[in-house]
Amino acid sequence: MTELARASDGRATRAAVLGAGSWGTTFAKVLADAGCDVMLHARRPELAKSITEDGENRDYLPGVRLPAAVRATADPAEALLDAEVVVLAVPSQSLRGNLTDWASLLPGDATLLSLMKGIELGTTKRMSEVICEVTGAGTDRVAVLSGPNLAREIAEEQPAATVIACPDTERAGRLQAACHTRYFRPYTNPDMVGCELGGAVKNVIALACGIAEGLGFGDNTRASLITRGLAETARLGMALGAELTTFAGLAGLGDLVATCSSPLSRNRTFGEKLGRGMSVAEVQESTRQTAEGVKSCRSVLDLARAHGIDVPITEAVVRVCHEGEAPGRMVGEIMSREAKSE
Amino acid sequence: MTELARASDGRATRAAVLGAGSWGTTFAKVLADAGCDVMLHARRPELAKSITEDGENRDYLPGVRLPAAVRATADPAEALLDAEVVVLAVPSQSLRGNLTDWASLLPGDATLLSLMKGIELGTTKRMSEVICEVTGAGTDRVAVLSGPNLAREIAEEQPAATVIACPDTERAGRLQAACHTRYFRPYTNPDMVGCELGGAVKNVIALACGIAEGLGFGDNTRASLITRGLAETARLGMALGAELTTFAGLAGLGDLVATCSSPLSRNRTFGEKLGRGMSVAEVQESTRQTAEGVKSCRSVLDLARAHGIDVPITEAVVRVCHEGEAPGRMVGEIMSREAKSE
Repeated sequence: MTELARASDGRATRAAVLGAGSWGTTFAKVLADAGCDVMLHARRPELAKSITEDGENRDYLPGVRLPAAVRATADPAEALLDAEVVVLAVPSQSLRGNLTDWASLLPGDATLLSLMKGIELGTTKRMSEVICEVTGAGTDRVAVLSGPNLAREIAEEQPAATVIACPDTERAGRLQAACHTRYFRPYTNPDMVGCELGGAVKNVIALACGIAEGLGFGDNTRASLITRGLAETARLGMALGAELTTFAGLAGLGDLVATCSSPLSRNRTFGEKLGRGMSVAEVQESTRQTAEGVKSCRSVLDLARAHGIDVPITEAVVRVCHEGEAPGRMVGEIMSREAKSE
Repeated sequence: MTELARASDGRATRAAVLGAGSWGTTFAKVLADAGCDVMLHARRPELAKSITEDGENRDYLPGVRLPAAVRATADPAEALLDAEVVVLAVPSQSLRGNLTDWASLLPGDATLLSLMKGIELGTTKRMSEVICEVTGAGTDRVAVLSGPNLAREIAEEQPAATVIACPDTERAGRLQAACHTRYFRPYTNPDMVGCELGGAVKNVIALACGIAEGLGFGDNTRASLITRGLAETARLGMALGAELTTFAGLAGLGDLVATCSSPLSRNRTFGEKLGRGMSVAEVQESTRQTAEGVKSCRSVLDLARAHGIDVPITEAVVRVCHEGEAPGRMVGEIMSREAKSE
């Protein structure tokens, strides 16, 4: 597949991945395996040094050998030099701050690809909206990648499919080529709003599924939460102009099912601990990684209220995570909502 | 909820459940808990006797206490006497034979409710079509119940939701009342074709998910199979006149996710053993219960071909189950199908 990620002059595509967490690091490996030259930016110099020297990110992706074409740096200017593709993989709520620091370093025509799944608190903006606002880039330069993509499985080269959403179809095609490998298959879809909504709300639904699991509920309950969760995601997405079919696809249903089922999902695991009786503060202390849904649930709810959309599962997650409601009440309330026909 | 299952004169609804497997027995408990008088028909007299005397179906639902309102008999005439609701819960491929024997015993206006999930081999008929054909009942007397309903979890009174599909909305409402309990919540939906298709094809997709799991693939692959499996189910359903929204609901997505995720699912478990290298004959010998999908995959494929619909996952399952293809090839083929946009 290597040739796909080369320009017509045979030169490898130059990619910068900003954010060396498990997904950013995994995606750096995917890009390198597809033939790109990759610079991975890690905030801490010692982490950057150890990634370059050892070919492994011991903090966030231990045990996975990174290709030689992945080098790391703590200097954003070095990471971004001549980058044709800039991949943003920082925590959603840190994006605005990080990008403000980096904006002046971004090469003029670089494609800005978001791997992030969240809605900004306070502004209720999607990640692509924050990117356009902070960098001044037009939406045609911005793209989103989303799908059933548990990082650990992809790092182990298990086959996975994903969706690249970009209004500029030619740019979408180039991105597709830049990350297409034997084990990672990207599809294109022009619906950026749908892909971002699917990615953001699924973290909230995964929290709900985790809570139910922690309380001892089984697969019937989880399947019902996933079904209704997808319905509330689609309702909100349609109000924002997304296409219904996106929610039935890999970036909607696919991502939701993977996240709600897997023991590798942080949000699901976070919810499970809540369901078992730990407080949000206690769970946060016990884990190093961010559970996006704990923050995003509030911005998703704000966004839904601003558009007059009913999102009962998101509401319940907000009550449990931020208003002190006992998890035990949540599942019963959701499962017993009054309705006669589906 | 008991009063819901009573006629206006306060008499309990009389229900016959034909088929004392795990789901038939569980549903008999649900009906009794909702206030019905239930006669459960088991083929073997010794099983019927032990269910009535011990209040437990030790063969198919061990450890679950059945309400006193559930009695069992091996005599179909006794089971069907004065039944207002006749619940059919036999293996799909046995329905025609069984029903031919029972047809003359069915009370004239009884509602015939199918719990079965399959497509008849040879005729490619849905279960409701077989029921109408054999009994001469109009479609308005026939109903289908389907949803994310793993029997064991419902028997343990974990909260679950389901869908009752019946073209006669008044009859659907009576059925809803007859099985609505604290832990089991039925919704109505007029789309019988969609509910039956969702129920039949999900067994085939669950086989595919099991095969992938047995081969060592993880949650990304399963989520992709579920997403594409639902898409092929919906394509086929729409060709048969079903509503798209049914597939996004509990009887489509919900049932599919529960069946594809749960270790309680027979079809998924059957597939897992195939993926680990056992032959179909070996798996069949090692288990007492029917994996409907192994039979139904052929009739689903026949149905799809008759309507010119592409069902790649079903095709792959047929090749593995009936044409000797190695499971190892299947997942790679499905995951690498050529497509540029979703």
